[in-house]
Amino acid sequence: MPTVTMIGGGQLARMTHQSAIALGQCLRVLAASAEEPAAAVSADVVLGSHDELADLLRAAQGAVAVTFDHEGVPLEHLKALEAQGVAVRPPSAALQYAQDKMSMRQRLAELGLPVPDFVDLSGDTAAARSALQAFGDRHDWQIVLKAVRGGYDGRGVWLIDGDADAALQVFDDRAGTDTVLMAEQKVAMRRELSAMIARSPHGQGAAWPVVETVQRNGQCAVVLAPAPDLDDEVAQRAQQMALGLADQLGVVGDMAMELFETTDGALMVNELAMRPHNSGHWTMDGAVTSQFEQHLRAVLDYPLGETTARAEVIVMANVLGAGEAPAMSMDERLHHLMARMPDAKVHLYGKSERPDRKVGHVNIVGKPGEDVEAVRERAERAAQWMSTAVWSDGWDPHTDTTAAERERNDG
Amino acid sequence: MPTVTMIGGGQLARMTHQSAIALGQCLRVLAASAEEPAAAVSADVVLGSHDELADLLRAAQGAVAVTFDHEGVPLEHLKALEAQGVAVRPPSAALQYAQDKMSMRQRLAELGLPVPDFVDLSGDTAAARSALQAFGDRHDWQIVLKAVRGGYDGRGVWLIDGDADAALQVFDDRAGTDTVLMAEQKVAMRRELSAMIARSPHGQGAAWPVVETVQRNGQCAVVLAPAPDLDDEVAQRAQQMALGLADQLGVVGDMAMELFETTDGALMVNELAMRPHNSGHWTMDGAVTSQFEQHLRAVLDYPLGETTARAEVIVMANVLGAGEAPAMSMDERLHHLMARMPDAKVHLYGKSERPDRKVGHVNIVGKPGEDVEAVRERAERAAQWMSTAVWSDGWDPHTDTTAAERERNDG
Repeated sequence: MPTVTMIGGGQLARMTHQSAIALGQCLRVLAASAEEPAAAVSADVVLGSHDELADLLRAAQGAVAVTFDHEGVPLEHLKALEAQGVAVRPPSAALQYAQDKMSMRQRLAELGLPVPDFVDLSGDTAAARSALQAFGDRHDWQIVLKAVRGGYDGRGVWLIDGDADAALQVFDDRAGTDTVLMAEQKVAMRRELSAMIARSPHGQGAAWPVVETVQRNGQCAVVLAPAPDLDDEVAQRAQQMALGLADQLGVVGDMAMELFETTDGALMVNELAMRPHNSGHWTMDGAVTSQFEQHLRAVLDYPLGETTARAEVIVMANVLGAGEAPAMSMDERLHHLMARMPDAKVHLYGKSERPDRKVGHVNIVGKPGEDVEAVRERAERAAQWMSTAVWSDGWDPHTDTTAAERERNDG
Repeated sequence: MPTVTMIGGGQLARMTHQSAIALGQCLRVLAASAEEPAAAVSADVVLGSHDELADLLRAAQGAVAVTFDHEGVPLEHLKALEAQGVAVRPPSAALQYAQDKMSMRQRLAELGLPVPDFVDLSGDTAAARSALQAFGDRHDWQIVLKAVRGGYDGRGVWLIDGDADAALQVFDDRAGTDTVLMAEQKVAMRRELSAMIARSPHGQGAAWPVVETVQRNGQCAVVLAPAPDLDDEVAQRAQQMALGLADQLGVVGDMAMELFETTDGALMVNELAMRPHNSGHWTMDGAVTSQFEQHLRAVLDYPLGETTARAEVIVMANVLGAGEAPAMSMDERLHHLMARMPDAKVHLYGKSERPDRKVGHVNIVGKPGEDVEAVRERAERAAQWMSTAVWSDGWDPHTDTTAAERERNDG
C-alpha cells in the first residue's frame, strides 16, 4: 500500500495515522522530536524541521504524496518540492492562501465570495498607519487586527473594541518587525459556522454537514454538529461556497471554511484551513467517514467516503491543559470520566499539559431523541472535567450525587 | 499515560494500537519481525519471540500490564511473569483454559455450562484409541476431532462425517506426535453465535449484543450483529453465561464465547477466546465502544465503555488473500470498492496475501430501515471483491451496471 508523508508531528498527524492504519498504511511523519504526538505513535518517523528543504526531501523520499498538519512550511520549499516532482497535496498554488490571510482575503474578494471589509497594512509604515487610521474611522474602530502569517488559536489576533489608541499601539509595536498586519471589519454576527469539505485531485468533492463552532479566548472550544436550527438553504450555500472555492483554488485534501453567520442571516468567510481541522473532530465518532480518513483518501486520489452524520446531534468539546497543578493526573481524570460517562469518546493527544493548550477532545454522540442542549451540556461537562479535574455540577463519585442533589437532600 | 504491552504483532495488536492512540497511549508490541501488522504501525516495538521468557520480560519492562493477541505463550512463561510481579491480563489461571481445549471443556462441564459430549484422547495410545472407538460408536461417528492446542481458523479441526476409518486415520497419524487430540460430538445446530464480553480486574463486566457468526472452511467469514431473530431470552442467557464464566475463571479483558444454537433452541458452548476476536470486529464501526478500546480499558482496570450497537444492523465480512495472482493490486481493489460503496468501512492489516489468509475485513453499518439480508449482501459483495477482484454481481465500473442489468438492457 502507498506511503503518505505528513509534515508536522502534532495531533492532526496523530489522528491521521489512526486512519492510515485502517487503510493498510503507516503514516510517515516529519517531526521535530520523537515525543511529538504523532511521532510517539507511528513506526515511520523522520526527525527534522519543516523549515529545512533537505529534511522535507528526506521525508518525501518514496512517499506517493506529501501533506501537512500545519501551514508552517515556507512557500518556496513547497515549490522546490514540486519542482522535484513531489506530489504536494494541497499544492503550493492552493496552500499559499491558507498560509497568508491577506492574499486569502484578496483572492476570495476577487472570486466574489462574501468577506468582511479589510485593509492591507504591509508596505511603508507611514502609509500603512494612515490606511489603518482611515479604515478604523470608517468602522468606528469596530475592527480586528491580524498577523497575516503564523497566527492560530487566537494568537496573532487583536480584537479592537472601538479603542483607536489600542489599535495604533498594536500597529506601532509591530512596525519594523517581521509581523505583517492587516485589519478587518468586526462583523455583527449571530454565530460562527464551519463548512468542511474534501476534494481529490480528480476533482471529486464531498461536504460534511455544516457545524456551529463556539470560540473561547480566540480558540475553538465546542463544535455542534450539525449546526442547530440552520436554514437548509444557508447550509447548502455554505457547502457550495466551500466546494466551489476548493475547486477554483485547486485544493486537495480536507478544507475547513470558517464562516460568520451575520445577524441579518448572511454568510461571510472568515478563515480557511487546508488540512484536517478542529471543527471536524466530531466526524471521528459522528460521521460515516472521519475527516482524517477523508484527508488520506483525497490526498491519495481515492474516491471519497460518505459524509453523513451517524446521529442527529454530535458535540465535540476540546480538552485544555490544566492551569495549575491539577488535583489528579490525566490518567486519573480519564478513569473518573469513564466511570461517569460510559459513552464519552475521548481522544488524547499525548501532549504535556500547559494552560489553554489543546491536549485532547471529547465527542458525545447524542442518544436518539436527546436534544442539542443536553448533548452539549454533557460534552462540555466532560471536557471541563478532563481540563480541570472539576465537575461543573459538583458531582461526587462516592455518593454519585451532584451538588444540587446534595443540597436538595440536605434541605 | 500508562503503557500496555501486547504479546504478538498480528492484526489484533494492530487494531488495539489504534485504540491506544485515542487513549493517549502507544501500544507496545512484542513481534517476531518489524513487518508484522502491529509492528509496522507502532512506535514501540520489541522484537523477540513469545516462546522466550527473556523476550517476554524485556517487553514487560515498564509496562503496567501485559496482554495477548494470541494464545501461544507457554503457560510456564505466563506463571514466571506473574511470579516476577508482572500484571498478566488475563492471568494464567484464566488463560490456560483458552490455550487448552480439553481443560476448557472439563472446566466448563464442572461449572455446569452446556457443552457437547467430549472425550479425552491424551495418554496411552491404545487406551485412547479404544476410547475414540467407543465415543465414535456412541455418536454414529458424527463427531469432530480437535487438536487440544494451537489450532485456529479451521486448522487442527477434523470434521468426521460418519466415517469411522477417517477418524481412526486422523488419530493414528498423530499417535506419538506432539499433537494431543480430543473428540467431540457433532452438534445438530441451527447456527453459531458469539457472546462477546469484557471484564475488568475490579470485576466490572460488559456485554455487546450477541452476534451470529457464519463459518466457511472452518474459519469465521461473516458476522451479523446483532444475531437476527434471536430470542431476547436466549440472547440474555448467552450474555449471562459469558459474564458468569469470565467471573468464575477470573478473566480480564475481552472474552468471546462461541456458541452453538441447536436445532431445538438450546445453547452449547463451543470455543473460548480471551482477547479481541474476529466476532467482535463489527464493534469498530458499529458499537459505541469497540472491542479494542474495551480490551485496553479492561486490562488497565478503567471503567468499561458502553456496548450499545450504533445501528439496527451491522455486518462484518472478512477479506481473504487472493488465491492466484489477482487481476488487481490491493490498492486498486480498494479504489474500486470506495468508488462503489462510499460507506464501506475497510480495515486492512498490512499483511501479504496468501490464499485463505485473513488480510482485512469490511464493516457495513446498515442504513435506517435496511434489512439484514441487504446489509449482508453488501458486506459479502465488498469482501469478495477485496478478496478476489471479482464482483459477485458482475458490476462494470465503466458502465456502472451489473451483469443482470446489462442482460436486461440487451434483451
